[in-house]
Amino acid sequence: MSKAFQRIGLIAKDGDERVATVLHALVALLDRRGLNHVLDQRTAAALPDWPHKAEDAETLAGDVDLIIAVGGDGTLLNTARVLAARPVPLVGINLGRLGFLTDIVASRAADDVAAILDGRFTRDMRHMLSARIEREGREAEADLALNDVVIQKADGGRMIEFETWVDDTFVSLHRADGMIAATATGSTAYALSGGGPILHPDVDALALVPICPHTLSDRPLVVPGNSRLRFVLRGDERTRAQLNWDGQKTHELIAGDRVELQRSKEKTTLLHPPGYDYFALLRSKLHWGRAQEEQVPR
Amino acid sequence: MSKAFQRIGLIAKDGDERVATVLHALVALLDRRGLNHVLDQRTAAALPDWPHKAEDAETLAGDVDLIIAVGGDGTLLNTARVLAARPVPLVGINLGRLGFLTDIVASRAADDVAAILDGRFTRDMRHMLSARIEREGREAEADLALNDVVIQKADGGRMIEFETWVDDTFVSLHRADGMIAATATGSTAYALSGGGPILHPDVDALALVPICPHTLSDRPLVVPGNSRLRFVLRGDERTRAQLNWDGQKTHELIAGDRVELQRSKEKTTLLHPPGYDYFALLRSKLHWGRAQEEQVPR
Amino acid sequence: MSKAFQRIGLIAKDGDERVATVLHALVALLDRRGLNHVLDQRTAAALPDWPHKAEDAETLAGDVDLIIAVGGDGTLLNTARVLAARPVPLVGINLGRLGFLTDIVASRAADDVAAILDGRFTRDMRHMLSARIEREGREAEADLALNDVVIQKADGGRMIEFETWVDDTFVSLHRADGMIAATATGSTAYALSGGGPILHPDVDALALVPICPHTLSDRPLVVPGNSRLRFVLRGDERTRAQLNWDGQKTHELIAGDRVELQRSKEKTTLLHPPGYDYFALLRSKLHWGRAQEEQVPR
Amino acid sequence: MSKAFQRIGLIAKDGDERVATVLHALVALLDRRGLNHVLDQRTAAALPDWPHKAEDAETLAGDVDLIIAVGGDGTLLNTARVLAARPVPLVGINLGRLGFLTDIVASRAADDVAAILDGRFTRDMRHMLSARIEREGREAEADLALNDVVIQKADGGRMIEFETWVDDTFVSLHRADGMIAATATGSTAYALSGGGPILHPDVDALALVPICPHTLSDRPLVVPGNSRLRFVLRGDERTRAQLNWDGQKTHELIAGDRVELQRSKEKTTLLHPPGYDYFALLRSKLHWGRAQEEQVPR
Repeated sequence: MSKAFQRIGLIAKDGDERVATVLHALVALLDRRGLNHVLDQRTAAALPDWPHKAEDAETLAGDVDLIIAVGGDGTLLNTARVLAARPVPLVGINLGRLGFLTDIVASRAADDVAAILDGRFTRDMRHMLSARIEREGREAEADLALNDVVIQKADGGRMIEFETWVDDTFVSLHRADGMIAATATGSTAYALSGGGPILHPDVDALALVPICPHTLSDRPLVVPGNSRLRFVLRGDERTRAQLNWDGQKTHELIAGDRVELQRSKEKTTLLHPPGYDYFALLRSKLHWGRAQEEQVPR
Repeated sequence: MSKAFQRIGLIAKDGDERVATVLHALVALLDRRGLNHVLDQRTAAALPDWPHKAEDAETLAGDVDLIIAVGGDGTLLNTARVLAARPVPLVGINLGRLGFLTDIVASRAADDVAAILDGRFTRDMRHMLSARIEREGREAEADLALNDVVIQKADGGRMIEFETWVDDTFVSLHRADGMIAATATGSTAYALSGGGPILHPDVDALALVPICPHTLSDRPLVVPGNSRLRFVLRGDERTRAQLNWDGQKTHELIAGDRVELQRSKEKTTLLHPPGYDYFALLRSKLHWGRAQEEQVPR
Repeated sequence: MSKAFQRIGLIAKDGDERVATVLHALVALLDRRGLNHVLDQRTAAALPDWPHKAEDAETLAGDVDLIIAVGGDGTLLNTARVLAARPVPLVGINLGRLGFLTDIVASRAADDVAAILDGRFTRDMRHMLSARIEREGREAEADLALNDVVIQKADGGRMIEFETWVDDTFVSLHRADGMIAATATGSTAYALSGGGPILHPDVDALALVPICPHTLSDRPLVVPGNSRLRFVLRGDERTRAQLNWDGQKTHELIAGDRVELQRSKEKTTLLHPPGYDYFALLRSKLHWGRAQEEQVPR
Repeated sequence: MSKAFQRIGLIAKDGDERVATVLHALVALLDRRGLNHVLDQRTAAALPDWPHKAEDAETLAGDVDLIIAVGGDGTLLNTARVLAARPVPLVGINLGRLGFLTDIVASRAADDVAAILDGRFTRDMRHMLSARIEREGREAEADLALNDVVIQKADGGRMIEFETWVDDTFVSLHRADGMIAATATGSTAYALSGGGPILHPDVDALALVPICPHTLSDRPLVVPGNSRLRFVLRGDERTRAQLNWDGQKTHELIAGDRVELQRSKEKTTLLHPPGYDYFALLRSKLHWGRAQEEQVPR
């Protein structure tokens, strides 16, 4: 099974000085095993002098059979977007504390990647969301997200008004700062800050989490994973809003715009090192359990 | 299709004076159509004089091919428990405002039941939860719930401590007033008061909603519908807790007790009159939308 | 006591067709009593033809001893800003459903204003917040708010990072969409949507409500009313944020900006008609009580 | 100033094996300084052999001019109840992690107590709540609480129904698992788990936090500290509820019972060692700030 990975792509977060150490450790490992490797050009440019092969991310994505993303969950989200339609699996290494998506800490990078190259890993397929903006019957923008797609106010306004539809059935007219449509993967990210539930990755569902809703009973709603969602922005010529993919890409919305959302056919494949345990990760990230028992004394 | 319903069972809430009016209207309808009907004996006993057939609820449940529950959602929850393993469909009539489960108001009872008898209805299959208490390796109690099963403190204590497991994987050690395990059906009941999300009935999942958790990041968790859940009560000989089914049946728990929970094979079949719309019901029950636009002025 | 009000200012919401009817009824009342009245010029311009005196809002505010604001709570918030340092009392008439600040409905406008002119009213003094932006040691902007001052992300970013200080003591480094600093008056507005508590108007305190905070235990904090608050925006040259007064006025913030906030010496004086009851208003606005008993069936 | 403390009372948590070590260290310190000390008899009984003076807690409370409570916040809450009307100051030592009330960790016990005996401390006066149950016009029970008084369901029922009144004005008819009335001190305890705000100790207010309220807009309410609160339990002869003081003392309630609550004249005096910082304690207890920045990646 380890034969599967012969050409390894490396992508890292810009401008983090801890990157070089991890990359050199990984390259030493790959060289020892005689495996090809190529670094994302943008990462290479930010390093003092990178003596090995580098390519732009798009080309790299077509040339390799495994990608290692070094940084934080944001780095991995970006990489997932570049990969989009390609079935290349992803390994995430976090330069700080463990991430939900980047579940290998830097100090374990070489050991855990070695295990994965040996074929010892858990394959974890995650759904993505596809969101399309329609303006006057034409597509204004479209892209994929791994975590979430967010419709939100812009320009300092207090509130936007929009309809939500599920499978052509009207759900509600919302007045809020916005709405987060999250995958199970995204349920532990922005949606959690907005008051949404944690969706186990095996739950076939999407979470709709209103942001600061005007009506107090406008609560998070979980719908089947294959639902077709639609937001229709209400307002007038002064209305300004935005659509945001994974907290990283933004497109302006005007009154009348329709946002069509559904699970994409594409999936992101994450590889986890041996011992991966979703609930252990939750406990660690959310400070659950014994050690926190004194958090709220009562 | 209307041939399906020849023998109609009637069950109503005790001690509500509005019951008689609705029952007489229903019986008039059934008599006009030449259909058999039988009233739950307990309901009959509470009416001044009921000139028609009455049986105890268990017998009735075995004799009919449709049951009409008149009261509130609690009446229907009770009826679903009695029916349990039987595939008899249920129609719910609410004596007050619309309920989530009893979605026919009293004033429309005869008309909507007539439509259902004509075969004009939506069939809505709802999963139930099966919960079993194990004490020292033996089953202490077991029953079904349509909405939720709740582990909770008893005797005025502030908090209980219990482990949660999903499919034999440890989730967390909770310190809380309790935990609500809710079906999608129950997600709009007690679980919603506890801060849980709304699960659309077609979402194949269960919600775990901690009640007043000690750790602030102990948030609602949604797991796949076929998960096997386990709660293990921690504590000592002074520890007292309870297990509760649908807010209606309670069994004491002591330290060391294990609660095993999973979706039951049995389902409850609800019949809705023409025009049933889940989201319209949500909007109505939760006061969503335009009329509420002034609720929180900002 | 009714002698106090001889010159009445009228200010109304632009572009609402229901305005004219209410204004004409009020003018008829004032004329019958021989009281002077003057309409805000901007309102006058939006009416087909206004045969009476009109002045710009600032001038008007200096000329009158009572102002009647017709519209919604937003209209009253705007008027309070114009009045700022002047002790002229305000009466609020709501064109729709009752507001928290505009607690006279249009159909009762003439009767309730008549009662107030007769001296039958409750005087309600509300604190205002004063917020000043300091950039590189100089004041970049400063203004008052009756409800709230909000520091918030701009330009579609996901999060801003800022320090909060109370009376020169460090509180926390927040990562969030923003933070709402609300008076008791504002606690039922945007702060409530953000998860904040309701502060009774007689509570001498300010509420700090984080918006979608990254850390789940970053909860609403209530500090003494005379606290001096400071937000310091972290980030780099790409950081964009905003300060917003009462949801109506916005000023851009850049990394390093300090926002200094405290209760202002100025107060807004609201006059309520006979029978004013704060808790009755809460019950009505928030749909509390009996009528809602079926909201979440359990 | 150190002259003030000549006779020191010691009270510790039962059955915690770490207690002896801390007590012996404290006694060594007190003996070195020639100060009298007396241990709570119940604590003494739980220790293998205590060679020094011991008295029952009530007597002890009358004999000393400083009390050191060793255990957790619960130990200190209990001690505060025993002291009630006496102005003896309290020092709290926590056997585990820092508590909100017991803000000296065991390893610093001797050093921090030495500083306090030297007169280096912050004096912190905390309000208490007085709650009285009235049944058919007679007082059924009354006591003080430092954190909170809770009206709550009993016997596994789902909900209780009760009226809330503030200063003889009706607030609302609640249907909920209960209601927490918390002081600022108690706002970081049970009330926080129930969704209440954090009240800074200098805020002169009480928080009313509904527990799992039936109506979703039934939100935490903060009222002036000198408010007179009343709960009136609704229901019939089957209704069972409880009143609970500080999570430690419980009294049964039946339908018709009135609970009268207000700030007591008595205060609890806490002494904090040098360097005490309320917000630093919050950051530590609630895991705020930098170290948690990766808690919810987004």
